[in-house]
Amino acid sequence: MTVDGRARSLWGWGFADRFPDRAARRSLAQQVGALLGARELEVREPVSPESLALPSPRALPTAELAAFSTSAILERARHCYGKGYRDLVRGFRGDYASAPDFVARPRNEAELDELLAACAKNKWAAIPFGGGTSVVGGVEAALPPGFSGAVSIDLGAFDRVLEVDPVSRAARIQAGALGPALEAQLEPRGFSLRHFPQSFEHSTLGGWIATRAGGHFATLYTHIDDLVESVRIVTPRGVWQSLRVPGSGAGPSPDRLALGSEGIFGVITEAWVRVQPRPRFRAQASVHFPSFGGGVEATRAIAQAGLYPSNCRLLDPTEALLHRVAGDGSSVLLLAFESADHELSPWMSRALALAAECGGDCPKGPRFSDAESPRASESQAGDAWRAAFFDAPYLQSALVSLGVLCDTFETACTWDKFAALNAAVTDATSAALRRVCGGGIVSCRFTHVYPDGPAPYYTFIGAAKKGGELEQWAEIKRAASDALSASGATITHHHAVGRIHRPWYDRQRPEPFALALKAAKAALDPAGV
Amino acid sequence: MTVDGRARSLWGWGFADRFPDRAARRSLAQQVGALLGARELEVREPVSPESLALPSPRALPTAELAAFSTSAILERARHCYGKGYRDLVRGFRGDYASAPDFVARPRNEAELDELLAACAKNKWAAIPFGGGTSVVGGVEAALPPGFSGAVSIDLGAFDRVLEVDPVSRAARIQAGALGPALEAQLEPRGFSLRHFPQSFEHSTLGGWIATRAGGHFATLYTHIDDLVESVRIVTPRGVWQSLRVPGSGAGPSPDRLALGSEGIFGVITEAWVRVQPRPRFRAQASVHFPSFGGGVEATRAIAQAGLYPSNCRLLDPTEALLHRVAGDGSSVLLLAFESADHELSPWMSRALALAAECGGDCPKGPRFSDAESPRASESQAGDAWRAAFFDAPYLQSALVSLGVLCDTFETACTWDKFAALNAAVTDATSAALRRVCGGGIVSCRFTHVYPDGPAPYYTFIGAAKKGGELEQWAEIKRAASDALSASGATITHHHAVGRIHRPWYDRQRPEPFALALKAAKAALDPAGV
Repeated sequence: MTVDGRARSLWGWGFADRFPDRAARRSLAQQVGALLGARELEVREPVSPESLALPSPRALPTAELAAFSTSAILERARHCYGKGYRDLVRGFRGDYASAPDFVARPRNEAELDELLAACAKNKWAAIPFGGGTSVVGGVEAALPPGFSGAVSIDLGAFDRVLEVDPVSRAARIQAGALGPALEAQLEPRGFSLRHFPQSFEHSTLGGWIATRAGGHFATLYTHIDDLVESVRIVTPRGVWQSLRVPGSGAGPSPDRLALGSEGIFGVITEAWVRVQPRPRFRAQASVHFPSFGGGVEATRAIAQAGLYPSNCRLLDPTEALLHRVAGDGSSVLLLAFESADHELSPWMSRALALAAECGGDCPKGPRFSDAESPRASESQAGDAWRAAFFDAPYLQSALVSLGVLCDTFETACTWDKFAALNAAVTDATSAALRRVCGGGIVSCRFTHVYPDGPAPYYTFIGAAKKGGELEQWAEIKRAASDALSASGATITHHHAVGRIHRPWYDRQRPEPFALALKAAKAALDPAGV
Repeated sequence: MTVDGRARSLWGWGFADRFPDRAARRSLAQQVGALLGARELEVREPVSPESLALPSPRALPTAELAAFSTSAILERARHCYGKGYRDLVRGFRGDYASAPDFVARPRNEAELDELLAACAKNKWAAIPFGGGTSVVGGVEAALPPGFSGAVSIDLGAFDRVLEVDPVSRAARIQAGALGPALEAQLEPRGFSLRHFPQSFEHSTLGGWIATRAGGHFATLYTHIDDLVESVRIVTPRGVWQSLRVPGSGAGPSPDRLALGSEGIFGVITEAWVRVQPRPRFRAQASVHFPSFGGGVEATRAIAQAGLYPSNCRLLDPTEALLHRVAGDGSSVLLLAFESADHELSPWMSRALALAAECGGDCPKGPRFSDAESPRASESQAGDAWRAAFFDAPYLQSALVSLGVLCDTFETACTWDKFAALNAAVTDATSAALRRVCGGGIVSCRFTHVYPDGPAPYYTFIGAAKKGGELEQWAEIKRAASDALSASGATITHHHAVGRIHRPWYDRQRPEPFALALKAAKAALDPAGV
């Protein structure tokens, strides 16, 4: 699979040409080995695509599906997994046991209808596939009993911006459009969706909607939810097209039931979303705190002040060190405001004053830029952050090739619970890392903040024992998830449920809501495809 | 029924002592008669409570329900209707044909459980009743076949603020708490919910959640939806308690399915909601526009600028005249910002600059106040507006006693559609008023604004022909609703669906969503109570 002629990695993150060569990985192995306490890391190579062995397909595309379907081994392998740690490890090993039997790439809703009908008729599980970046097992076809096959529905042909309404600032976009592709189509019209999840380059609008993806705005427009005007879903019982209005009070919101539905009702084909002009004014600052607690207090004060920063990302000392924005044990708050309308010094000044009251120091002062001014400057910490942000998934793939166990998980809790939650999660994850890897690193940052609580995001890294990586990962994940659950936090803030979070999700959702959802699913998809 | 010792009107809005005496209504009749073109309006009196005749109850409370139930005629009458135009007219006439058979007032969830079980067993329709201010037929017991009775479930005993979390700024509040009661309990803790629908004095938190009520914030926190952290519902299949977190991406939001559910899943008993300190800083301005179109453009520019005013209420010339904020054919934008954290001149200055670019003039300039400053001043137009806002429902009741047909309806649409929608709705409503009443008044204001569109709110007034008020009203309502529907707008932005909006709601909701909702309802309430 290529994007603009550039090949994607079969097993690892993103473009194949971004996987570092052996020499670069040797040097990485030394750095990371040192970080993990003088551990020797072995540089390994993934199984080559030529030598892949997949199970024989249990089902083949019928004649009417043949025009847009394939059973080619590489395509089946490409559609087998998302890009979570377990996916990377299995892909690296060449283990594609749960690959779909074939991949269909419908070119329009009529073909999609035909496909869903064939799935119902033949008892095939239908699995919508956007960019394939799920980190929670969202696209994997582990078939329950009763199915005779699994079809991956690739939405790649649904990649157009169909309509732009410049007055209301909204656009109708097909669900299979990747982040860069939809931005490239909006740009000549003077607009941007400005939804930048870490997976931005390789994930799609439909995927974001199905999983309630989190974007780059730290406040207000935190999830794609907040940018959706209406959704179109092809279900086995007909088309679900919600009315396009800016707000409504007519019954429960159909869009809010579609958001996070992870494909259970049907296949999302398009949506009207809110767009905006690119920001002209920017204000950025890095605020250093001697204690993490002071940083938390400052972040809470800013989140509760009604200032709505676009970035309000608090890094604990380990995160600050790993991302090279501080190395002296400080916590760092990366703060930014953006606007297409007005300059931002009153907003930034007030936020910095609140931070200062909690012991925050902004040694370089705030930086302001105006896209129309010739001397536009950007904050170095902010820039370094952005580059590192989009590179992180590439780094994870490289680390997997060194036998390093590394993953992230995220949550949200109310402010009153954060200190206890952070201690419990860090302790549980560190203890599991010690048991499993003989030690490791756990770090925390806030990706999004609300007046009533933060969304903490954790990273853990350890040296895996060769051969049992998946079991080692599962033990750490279980420890971390149990701690989240016991602390009254959500099992996911923006990574979705998938297969991986299911046990903890089942504990957190209200039982009657589970009954309601199950019944709704059965009504729209009687064959359970 | 009394609130703090003050009796509520049986048929009309709010407190009984606010219904004007005969002399006052005679004077009102002259003013309004002149406004409607020299029409003679007759001052009538409502049927007295003593002479009410209700149908005999089809069902009586069983022994275990007797401790918290009553079949008293006045209680049955009080729980018969909401406060929409049709309700006022029927109450005024003494027509309580669809009264519930008895009223239960459970004091805790155990009694509520018992009650729901009795309803299922005896085939009684269970109708949750909060403040009884529905304007869409939300509490009326028009029984479908198969039921042997109807019970009104009065949540009045669930009136406490149970918990306040000052760190996260949230409170756990029982669903039956009226607006003033919950504010009075929050106030000593230094907080306010700041959700002020027009019905504020007589409606409840549970009612707001069940109907997705709109509050006073013109932007961001437009609906109660945006203030809800988690919801607790007693359903026939157990308790629906969602996890209290500031944000989540774990599956579709249970709260968003509860919001707007209008009682179909069960009885809302409590919720965690976001609260905030009372604002210290306020900025207010009245901006006059020679044309309504200029006002619309200015309002759109402000809504799209990321300034988030707390009030951004555009009145067309008729509204401005009726509310006495302008009498020269101007449209008026009532603009306000509020903050507990920072002074607001940069926000107001930028909004006024945007308004000026569209021809807006602010003759008195903006007024700023600081609750700590001794010279705090408020804008006169803003104050006059607030008083008139809460008085409007009293005025409607008085007008009903003069045989005046008056009601409001509201919607939301994207900006690109507003001009055509406004023309179509105004034309259709005016034409219906001419047919039905020989003429009348139609006015429009925006109550809430979004980056992608406004929420227009219409008022219509005409002199009804005596005796056929309900039919005349229905003809106008139908004309207006058809015009909304044909213009691609929602049938309601914050008044809910109820019985009255059902035909148009059924047209606008996606058919598969209707199937999903029906199935979800059946799963949680197998007996369909």
